[in-house]
Amino acid sequence: MTIIDIIEKKKHKEKLTHEEISFVIKGMLDKSIADYQISSLLMAIVLNGMDEEETIYLTEEMINSGETIDLSNIDGVVVDKHSTGGVGDKVTLILAPLLASLDIKIAKMSGRGLGHTGGTIDKLEAIPGYQVELSRDDFIKQVNDIGIAVISQSGNIVPADKKLYALRDVTGTVDSIPLIASSIMSKKIASGADFIFIDVKVGNGALMKSLDEAKMLSQTMINIGKHFNKEVICILTDMDEPLGLAIGNSLEVQEAIDTLHGYGPVDVMELIVNIAALIVKRIKKIDIEEAKALCLKQLNNGNAYHKFEELVEAQHGNLKDMKISERVFSIKSPKEGYLTKINALGLGEIARIIGAGRLTKEDVIDPTVGLVLTHKVGDYVNTNDELVKVYLNNKDVKVDTILSCFEIKDEKPEEIPLIYEILE
Amino acid sequence: MTIIDIIEKKKHKEKLTHEEISFVIKGMLDKSIADYQISSLLMAIVLNGMDEEETIYLTEEMINSGETIDLSNIDGVVVDKHSTGGVGDKVTLILAPLLASLDIKIAKMSGRGLGHTGGTIDKLEAIPGYQVELSRDDFIKQVNDIGIAVISQSGNIVPADKKLYALRDVTGTVDSIPLIASSIMSKKIASGADFIFIDVKVGNGALMKSLDEAKMLSQTMINIGKHFNKEVICILTDMDEPLGLAIGNSLEVQEAIDTLHGYGPVDVMELIVNIAALIVKRIKKIDIEEAKALCLKQLNNGNAYHKFEELVEAQHGNLKDMKISERVFSIKSPKEGYLTKINALGLGEIARIIGAGRLTKEDVIDPTVGLVLTHKVGDYVNTNDELVKVYLNNKDVKVDTILSCFEIKDEKPEEIPLIYEILE
Repeated sequence: MTIIDIIEKKKHKEKLTHEEISFVIKGMLDKSIADYQISSLLMAIVLNGMDEEETIYLTEEMINSGETIDLSNIDGVVVDKHSTGGVGDKVTLILAPLLASLDIKIAKMSGRGLGHTGGTIDKLEAIPGYQVELSRDDFIKQVNDIGIAVISQSGNIVPADKKLYALRDVTGTVDSIPLIASSIMSKKIASGADFIFIDVKVGNGALMKSLDEAKMLSQTMINIGKHFNKEVICILTDMDEPLGLAIGNSLEVQEAIDTLHGYGPVDVMELIVNIAALIVKRIKKIDIEEAKALCLKQLNNGNAYHKFEELVEAQHGNLKDMKISERVFSIKSPKEGYLTKINALGLGEIARIIGAGRLTKEDVIDPTVGLVLTHKVGDYVNTNDELVKVYLNNKDVKVDTILSCFEIKDEKPEEIPLIYEILE
Repeated sequence: MTIIDIIEKKKHKEKLTHEEISFVIKGMLDKSIADYQISSLLMAIVLNGMDEEETIYLTEEMINSGETIDLSNIDGVVVDKHSTGGVGDKVTLILAPLLASLDIKIAKMSGRGLGHTGGTIDKLEAIPGYQVELSRDDFIKQVNDIGIAVISQSGNIVPADKKLYALRDVTGTVDSIPLIASSIMSKKIASGADFIFIDVKVGNGALMKSLDEAKMLSQTMINIGKHFNKEVICILTDMDEPLGLAIGNSLEVQEAIDTLHGYGPVDVMELIVNIAALIVKRIKKIDIEEAKALCLKQLNNGNAYHKFEELVEAQHGNLKDMKISERVFSIKSPKEGYLTKINALGLGEIARIIGAGRLTKEDVIDPTVGLVLTHKVGDYVNTNDELVKVYLNNKDVKVDTILSCFEIKDEKPEEIPLIYEILE
């Protein structure tokens, strides 16, 4: 077996065997296969696909490439949640304490972000003092004690994914359903949760540009879950405009806190209540409307926020020290009309440029910068009404670049649902 | 412009601009683009293609990546000839002196071989003393003096192709018509000839497995030629069985000498006379039958061989010192019947294993080893008739491996034409 034979097979749309996929993953990690050979194979996979069996083999080999976490010492069902990534997505920061406040165990390992804004871990690090690293024992103890822990993914979980993702990121081979599904699912399965909830973002700000693609990805992940005896629910949600109003690390933590108090932006509130209720319904075996009411109650009565405070305190964070830049500029609308588009990807890119995200692993995130939208798609704005506030520190961006992310027209745009579909 | 954007475009079957192709070639050579990015783009090109314009841009950028040879100081039309590569292909060794004996100028730069047997330069080096390197001035002087020079390709001609080919070879991205066409044509055009003759091999021993592919490749090369004001003729010839009887460096030089004397194997004679006549017809503006007669005459009257001797002498080679191994084994037929297949690729691989070819640039070729077929496809053999002689030195091969390249059946096989088509 040689890597060239394997590349040739995939180039000719043939199915790879379990043995061949194992050879590729092992060879990539022990460096007997060169990066330029892996990237050629990745492009062949992007263009010629992989079937369900190949995708399961790949997921299995990825899981086996590193450490797997045993959460059997935690009482009750352990839930993990993942988002395929969107601009302004602060859902984990809110959902995790909300569920924990309902005695659902959250043992979450999160990643850092590459690209527009930070990942959940980068957002939590906007809270001064927050320790993202815990020993395995302390992690499990904290979940048993207060029902929740959110830490950084250990270096030993699915090392094959780290390597593969880094390569995909720079070789134009990110957008492949089997590669995305095996990347997400290998990490979730290796992390040990029983119940995996995945928010699949759809739209111009997301990896999945169409609903059809998003459905295919979801179905693939559900099938992988079945093979490994994990319950998987996928919710397909819109990411044409950013989620909520805030983009940037401290700003998003602030918006998460607002939502945990019950007064977050309408779309964030809607998404949180719907996602949380789906999980609560399944675990507590209650009716979906009852589950929604229960979740809303936990936000409004302060229990969810209290659990968030407990989490931050347990991991040594200090909320009152969190900083947002005071160099704020207001971007005004050049004309009047309906906001028909807010380009999520464009604003995410701007957030990165001003320091809220990183392009390479070495870049350091500035938690104090970002953007806060004043309006959402569908709103009517007058000339000189504020569209967005920009929080800058030591990196700048042109006003025109920001304005190019907003489309204003005379006609009111059609309403796009926030939640497209739920697959389970 | 970033390499990732360019990869994304080709992945989505979009056409690349001249500027983008230039960016890729320059970035590859100055190493601002990583090999793993180039190989991902190469796989996208293999699977999604390139149109004629893109292929011309690529050819142009490859030519511009290095030195180009100015042959305007040579009087008369300068002819170059290329073969897409086959097992036992010694055509250049015969054709070049034959044409030179008819006052057609041959200023040929050839490559070394990677894979089964050596390239033309490796074969010439089987002649002790033959100097494959000449200064540019000496090269042109020799062509003006005796009408012919065959030297090794200089390191500065199309460096982009060297780099690209090395990468294609190890990433399963060899078989792409635009990549093959631009690789061949960039080298031919940079080498300065006016008239380019290309022997496109078709069959299991060749890069082009089908006649349709071979036609497409030929048409692409002819179109590139038109763009650069070069006359291009392509001849599509069979490479299911080896060409002639000899495989291996000294053995092929010996067969070339036999053919230059007018008594080479039937298929070699047929191919040489046909190719030479096509060129002679075009340059001397005579009838094809007249051209064939003229070429045959030059073989039979010794003029072609004499020109070969002049070439070898001018480049300090010593024919009488050429050695063929004396460790010869005769491989016998295990049964009787018609020879229905002689696997060219298989025998080429055996020739490499016993030392006639190289797998990596560092391997040293043993000119004295090889194989000489006793029979060709269509011959009837009795049990224990000799099929092939194997000339070994210090590397061995199993008899069964050799026998597996021969297929013997009761039914006489259909005759395959040696020359399929001529495109010009």
